Amino acid sequence: MSSARNLSAVLRRARVPRPRASIRPIFNLGVPTVNAARAFSVTSTVNATKEVKYTTDAYPDLKRNTNFAELTADDVTFFKDLLGAQSAVIDGVSTDAADDIEPFNGDWMRKYRGHTTLVLKPQTTEEVSKVLKYCNERKLAVVPQGGNTGLVGGSVPVFDEIVINTSRMNKIRSFDDASGVLVADAGVILEVADQYLAQRNHLFPLDLGAKGSCHIGGNVATNAGGLRLLRYGSLHGTVLGLEAVLPDGTVVDSLSTLRKNNTGYDLKQLFIGAEGTIGIITAVSILCPPRPKAVNVAYFGLESYDKVRQAFKEAKGQLSEILSAFELMDGRTQKLVHETTGNKYPLEEEYPFYCVVETSGSNAEHDMAKLESFLEHIMGEGIVADGVLAQDETQFQSIWRWREGITEALSHLGGTYKYDVSIPLPELYQLVEDCRERLTKFGFVGDDESFPVRAVVGYGHMGDSNLHLNISVRQYNKEVEKAIEPWVYEWIQKRNGSISAEHGLGLAKKEFIRYSQNDIMVKLMKQLKKLYDPNGIMNPYKYI
Amino acid sequence: MSSARNLSAVLRRARVPRPRASIRPIFNLGVPTVNAARAFSVTSTVNATKEVKYTTDAYPDLKRNTNFAELTADDVTFFKDLLGAQSAVIDGVSTDAADDIEPFNGDWMRKYRGHTTLVLKPQTTEEVSKVLKYCNERKLAVVPQGGNTGLVGGSVPVFDEIVINTSRMNKIRSFDDASGVLVADAGVILEVADQYLAQRNHLFPLDLGAKGSCHIGGNVATNAGGLRLLRYGSLHGTVLGLEAVLPDGTVVDSLSTLRKNNTGYDLKQLFIGAEGTIGIITAVSILCPPRPKAVNVAYFGLESYDKVRQAFKEAKGQLSEILSAFELMDGRTQKLVHETTGNKYPLEEEYPFYCVVETSGSNAEHDMAKLESFLEHIMGEGIVADGVLAQDETQFQSIWRWREGITEALSHLGGTYKYDVSIPLPELYQLVEDCRERLTKFGFVGDDESFPVRAVVGYGHMGDSNLHLNISVRQYNKEVEKAIEPWVYEWIQKRNGSISAEHGLGLAKKEFIRYSQNDIMVKLMKQLKKLYDPNGIMNPYKYI
Repeated sequence: MSSARNLSAVLRRARVPRPRASIRPIFNLGVPTVNAARAFSVTSTVNATKEVKYTTDAYPDLKRNTNFAELTADDVTFFKDLLGAQSAVIDGVSTDAADDIEPFNGDWMRKYRGHTTLVLKPQTTEEVSKVLKYCNERKLAVVPQGGNTGLVGGSVPVFDEIVINTSRMNKIRSFDDASGVLVADAGVILEVADQYLAQRNHLFPLDLGAKGSCHIGGNVATNAGGLRLLRYGSLHGTVLGLEAVLPDGTVVDSLSTLRKNNTGYDLKQLFIGAEGTIGIITAVSILCPPRPKAVNVAYFGLESYDKVRQAFKEAKGQLSEILSAFELMDGRTQKLVHETTGNKYPLEEEYPFYCVVETSGSNAEHDMAKLESFLEHIMGEGIVADGVLAQDETQFQSIWRWREGITEALSHLGGTYKYDVSIPLPELYQLVEDCRERLTKFGFVGDDESFPVRAVVGYGHMGDSNLHLNISVRQYNKEVEKAIEPWVYEWIQKRNGSISAEHGLGLAKKEFIRYSQNDIMVKLMKQLKKLYDPNGIMNPYKYI
Repeated sequence: MSSARNLSAVLRRARVPRPRASIRPIFNLGVPTVNAARAFSVTSTVNATKEVKYTTDAYPDLKRNTNFAELTADDVTFFKDLLGAQSAVIDGVSTDAADDIEPFNGDWMRKYRGHTTLVLKPQTTEEVSKVLKYCNERKLAVVPQGGNTGLVGGSVPVFDEIVINTSRMNKIRSFDDASGVLVADAGVILEVADQYLAQRNHLFPLDLGAKGSCHIGGNVATNAGGLRLLRYGSLHGTVLGLEAVLPDGTVVDSLSTLRKNNTGYDLKQLFIGAEGTIGIITAVSILCPPRPKAVNVAYFGLESYDKVRQAFKEAKGQLSEILSAFELMDGRTQKLVHETTGNKYPLEEEYPFYCVVETSGSNAEHDMAKLESFLEHIMGEGIVADGVLAQDETQFQSIWRWREGITEALSHLGGTYKYDVSIPLPELYQLVEDCRERLTKFGFVGDDESFPVRAVVGYGHMGDSNLHLNISVRQYNKEVEKAIEPWVYEWIQKRNGSISAEHGLGLAKKEFIRYSQNDIMVKLMKQLKKLYDPNGIMNPYKYI
């Protein structure tokens, strides 16, 4: 049987007689990394070597809102008295603390840089409340900041907004083994929360590259998506309760631990994805699933995007409840990873498309049987051209690095124009083709160093219709930029896609919101913003 | 091995040599039932035999809001001209249509009865918009109404509010097989939507007793929970987009079909569970999972609530991703079902507690193996005293009837005081014990016809910490009522539970919201209501 032959060819590659999934606690990848720049990689080495531009220089049209007060020494004294601990205030107003403050003014991509002179690190919800009440009365603008791992400039100041950093609010408040409900401060690092849960056989229902640095409060504030949304769902479903502070100091205590509670408007939902523009999230109650006992991962080469779609359909149908990730990478991304790392390709031939398929289940043998049957089918039907299946933890990590190493590989090559978009599946990859064709037609793309564009590549979360379109450039170039924007947003709008699938709006996408939201929606959003933050002090200049 | 013996004892009972799950399309239970009273049963036969009281008589403190206009013949002419079709307007203002209007004035439990003289059945979103705009300008109060299957009086008028019924908005707009996203009008009946999906190997991610009558718009407006929330999650996670009309006629077009879209506040969330108080939902976009290929169900007897908790913990751990329901019933409920139906008990002995455990998966053999191993464990450890496993569709239905027949059994006995609450699992059943003890101490409970209370029983969705406390009475009795309320709400409040887990607030629970929401939350809710519905015309006298 040809399918069996094909399958055994796949399995042989793994150099063990027959694959058997072992029980792998795959998410325990060591201790949390502390620095976002280590967890990620710096996207643009073009910028990395020189001083980061102030955001106010990059966006010269932005003017400081003159309604906002300017910080005084009295303000600083108030905050120092209030917060007590020396570590709670980094004071650049009355002292020279420029070096200490710099990391809070800039993002890890070195794309944004603010002018703040004050960083506050409250430790309790009450402190956050008093800080915000004071700021609101004084009309002092603020920027809520968690792990500062965002990609759209949402968590750093533009002008002199006070940074309110949640890193000292880092206690796990409770965990109930029977219900799987975790209640934790906003400043708990995602990986710390997940490690805590791992020890209790549970899993944080969110996983993303920045987990070693990002805060769960920031994850909720930005409605983070990540690698396994197709399995564990969105935070709008898993977050059961929130504690948040409104600009006027009101503490919104909606920290329910119940799965069902139909007693009025579900206000907490507004804070999920609000990017700190209507309040600061101080604690989160979230439903955590039992940790899977078996996890498997396979890597495939495919001849066309159509075949990728077929493979995804089969994975959904056959792997069904154990499917935990279905990631797409085009051939160019894998070539970049290969060239950057020098690692041997997982497959013998090269293909225009690759996928990573992960399963997570409660029974290793069952999962492997399902996976084998799935493999037999997609190989037998010629949907997949070749593939490998991880046999141990090392191979598991190695396969995931071919997917997760893309960002880093790109960063080694120069600048990158990054677009994080949702597009209905049938046309998901077409955007990459069309963009490449357009830039080629303009004469921008070539192997020679004289061409500004090195490559137009695509990868992302196939399972969520979420594409990362990346345009790797030898240098940032206004002409190239003009050829991409607003064309790319118009392209997405025509397909009813989203111009920001999971990265949010921040400063980077603020002006493009109308490509994904109509005028009525934007008007209603502005109405809500005004309701909760009439002075506009919360994370100004961004979002809507 | 004793566990194996115990297991085979369970399995023998099924009278086939060895259980093998068959592929059962279990949710295809025939054609949709049209009438809510048939899908449900009438709860209170005490009331069923006599004329239903007007809500205004049952709640004499409610006064008609004098800001609202009274309907005129001109208004009716306007609506008739607007909606055209004769079937779109039931006019009790200028004609005698009392009999035709009556079903829209009352609920299926025969607990609430309004005084409306006008029912409108728009067919398009534009019509809904024009109707609401007119009503808002004229200050005519309205009640949005779907299948009218609610349990808290939320979908019927109190005074003369115009009923806006969604039953003529019943088109399925689109379904995408690859993503599983269904877009449908608000008035599509849940079971119709699910049948449509069944033909396309998908499943509506919500199932509840009223599925033959309830509308998906109403499901979303009330944030319905139901039988399988523990598997498919809440509507806050599965609903991807909504189309809704605000009181001033504004059409909120947020009908996204994308899983990820981080471009601003997620406003649609406010409509989920708002019970028609800020607008009318006209269409829903929802993510539907592939239909499970294998479904199994088992029924257990247990010696204590502690054992139930242990069984649930094991089910979560061992059945994990295939667990689709874990229902709790106490011995008294099963006795009631037995006495009412005359059916033979599923188990030989009687137990103080019973559970229904359901699995849904993509591989019948794997699911059965997991279930067998689970059974072996819980029987071997003495967690479960006895049990049966359905061997075919008939047995499957029969087991579910022991759970779903409780409401009907209670309705045959007289009146029922019903409480639908969320309580953290450790104390979930304690409420039933404490309530029974309290009413017994007061001398209310007894087998003799002279006692007002026949039984205090508990059942519900263990997997969601959702208990239905039911107090079966021989006649409604003010003294009994006073002994239950507000005691029951105080009891729940002390445990940070919810006084309405899935039934919502409506009129029935409006005044008790503060037992589950603090003053700040209620204040913020009222602020939102005022923002969207400044004239208060949407479903007045209810909710918050």
